[in-house]
Amino acid sequence: MTLMTSWVPSANSAETPFPLNNLPYGVFSVGHAPARCGVAIGDMILDLTEAETKGLVSLPETAFDAPSWNKLMAMGPDVWADLRAQLTALLSEGGDTSAPLIAQADAQMHLPFQVAEYTDFYAGKHHAMNVGTMFRGPENALPPNWLHIPIGYNGRASSVVVSGTDVVRPNGQTKAPDADMPSFGPSKRLDIELEMGAIVGTGSELGQPISVAQADEMIFGYVLLNDWSARDIQAWEYQPLGPFQAKAFATSISPWIVTPAALEPFRTSTPEREKDLLPYLQEPSPMLFDIALDVTMAPEGKPATTIAQTNYNRMYYSAAQQLAHHASSGCAMSTGDLLGSGTISGPEKSERGSLLELTWGGKEPLTLDTGEVRTFIEDGDTLTLKGAAKGDGYQIGFGEVVGTIKPAVTFPK
Amino acid sequence: MTLMTSWVPSANSAETPFPLNNLPYGVFSVGHAPARCGVAIGDMILDLTEAETKGLVSLPETAFDAPSWNKLMAMGPDVWADLRAQLTALLSEGGDTSAPLIAQADAQMHLPFQVAEYTDFYAGKHHAMNVGTMFRGPENALPPNWLHIPIGYNGRASSVVVSGTDVVRPNGQTKAPDADMPSFGPSKRLDIELEMGAIVGTGSELGQPISVAQADEMIFGYVLLNDWSARDIQAWEYQPLGPFQAKAFATSISPWIVTPAALEPFRTSTPEREKDLLPYLQEPSPMLFDIALDVTMAPEGKPATTIAQTNYNRMYYSAAQQLAHHASSGCAMSTGDLLGSGTISGPEKSERGSLLELTWGGKEPLTLDTGEVRTFIEDGDTLTLKGAAKGDGYQIGFGEVVGTIKPAVTFPK
Repeated sequence: MTLMTSWVPSANSAETPFPLNNLPYGVFSVGHAPARCGVAIGDMILDLTEAETKGLVSLPETAFDAPSWNKLMAMGPDVWADLRAQLTALLSEGGDTSAPLIAQADAQMHLPFQVAEYTDFYAGKHHAMNVGTMFRGPENALPPNWLHIPIGYNGRASSVVVSGTDVVRPNGQTKAPDADMPSFGPSKRLDIELEMGAIVGTGSELGQPISVAQADEMIFGYVLLNDWSARDIQAWEYQPLGPFQAKAFATSISPWIVTPAALEPFRTSTPEREKDLLPYLQEPSPMLFDIALDVTMAPEGKPATTIAQTNYNRMYYSAAQQLAHHASSGCAMSTGDLLGSGTISGPEKSERGSLLELTWGGKEPLTLDTGEVRTFIEDGDTLTLKGAAKGDGYQIGFGEVVGTIKPAVTFPK
Repeated sequence: MTLMTSWVPSANSAETPFPLNNLPYGVFSVGHAPARCGVAIGDMILDLTEAETKGLVSLPETAFDAPSWNKLMAMGPDVWADLRAQLTALLSEGGDTSAPLIAQADAQMHLPFQVAEYTDFYAGKHHAMNVGTMFRGPENALPPNWLHIPIGYNGRASSVVVSGTDVVRPNGQTKAPDADMPSFGPSKRLDIELEMGAIVGTGSELGQPISVAQADEMIFGYVLLNDWSARDIQAWEYQPLGPFQAKAFATSISPWIVTPAALEPFRTSTPEREKDLLPYLQEPSPMLFDIALDVTMAPEGKPATTIAQTNYNRMYYSAAQQLAHHASSGCAMSTGDLLGSGTISGPEKSERGSLLELTWGGKEPLTLDTGEVRTFIEDGDTLTLKGAAKGDGYQIGFGEVVGTIKPAVTFPK
């Protein structure tokens, strides 16, 4: 696969994240006009609500009359393929240049879909080993189930926000190891988690498990995801039933949903198994993707420093495996469910996808290029995730996930 | 408070769960007609969609044009009080006897509201002590955070079903202590959890914590709740991030939402604290309720045996405390969020709200009145929860939560 050319000039570049090969889906607004569905092409957005009204795009039923992709998502893979074919024809060289385009620079982006439920996994082995080593020592780093189950927990859909949304530092209960009693106040160990998010397009019925192959076909697309985490709140609350308020204040996602069709040339297998998976979790074909990822950190008013660089292909479990496991008990999966991959870290220190790992629990502070020293995130800091699959003379970009930390609020009396 | 009399004769009895004092809210259908909102009165249902159309009930805007209570729930406490006053007047002796009534015997009940997100707590101390003693010994039964935090985890809203829905035995990964590898198949330790569910009526904003008093006012009503659990799946999966597939196959709720207004005479304080709560969790007034609860078990084709009897007043934390904690990090709470209380058990063995406790992990089998012996639930068994607040010559009943277990499905290849 090489760069496909478009009549939109800015799409024909090796540098744009959004060439014709990509066609990622988002929701945007301009000024005070209502939000609507769009597809990114170069530095422009094709207004799909308008394109559908004009008949430039035509599906079995109206898909773009609401500011969310859920309706199209529920229509299933055949309609997804049909839409992509129509968009490719429309935006290719020789396509209809009357298609309604808006400059991305003029648009505000919104959550691209209504999040039904949000699940976060713990499926990166390097991350699990790092965290496990810190908390339980290298001998007991991986929990006994880890090589058999893509460990996950249910998160909070109401906390999912689009890139650019400020993140308010959470309050919570924490307890110092030597304290008699816990105390309540702003988190002092605020962190990121570099993740990919998989979005369920077509759902499954309660009581009806699905295979890994079926799961792969149900995934509508992928986003970058930052699962903001308050490590001190998490440490005190998470036993015995898992993370709760430590991860309920914000999870940021990229505004553009990149489809499996765009990522097809970048499919790769999960790594070799250390222990055979049970048959219901085995991958019938490559279901992970080669996507370069990086994280930057910028103190208020200062330039950003790259603090981590890794790749989605580091994961031990693919999103399809996670989704099949999620439905294995008969749990119904719904259009709009969001599955976080779990923190993505690689074997090198520079590949660690959280500050917890990068600063080894705060013991090894980072010095930024601008001279500031950080263990965890301070008020005013801006954290940015970026990701792109790199092809031959083109890339499939995800855009950015940006978030700036605002001070904690005073608690109501 | 004594029995309030209605022109609906069946409502004027000490035995009916649904006297005029109660007025619980549900969604019903008759035959193939579309489902609609209704309120139970004696053995009848007032058709609220029809009553609104006829002008017998009038609110600031139309509330009952969809088969769910979410729209009314989002309108807030003043509208809730207004509706209750109108319904009380309409159904009192002397009210308008042209109000459209349907026999409950002719109606099929549906989920009364769209569940936004589902959270389950672990806030019953007797339950936590029993389970902790079994798993960690009596010295370490309560986790260190338990007396300070209403411990909870996010559950799966897509698994919430209305009473009467069959429950398919889940498949899942389990591992015998002496086995090298886990295996996959039907759960062998299928259990109930006797709980109450609190339903969030009005939501809160992301980044904006709420007080316990605010939380109490946000609660639209309560249901009975059975959080079906697969103990063998749970034991293998739950470390380190909590229950996942073990509790994702079904959570059954009663079809009728009982309002705080109906339960007002039964308010009671949570028990004396063993350790002072942090200020953000302190109860400014009684926010728990005196509600008698019982559980029966019936093998296929056999009569039921009562296996547990306890009371909601056994809880250590109220739903308002749980809700305030849930929002403490700034987590946005939404109309339709469902909060499970956690398993309700009392100090006596007969008050244990799960088979795990009743049979002490399967070591002390139960013998039913019909002679069958049970450790956990077998295919064909029917489990029923019942609950009622008992007043002076009347009761505020919740109806039943009934579920029958069907055999596990074969997993897709």
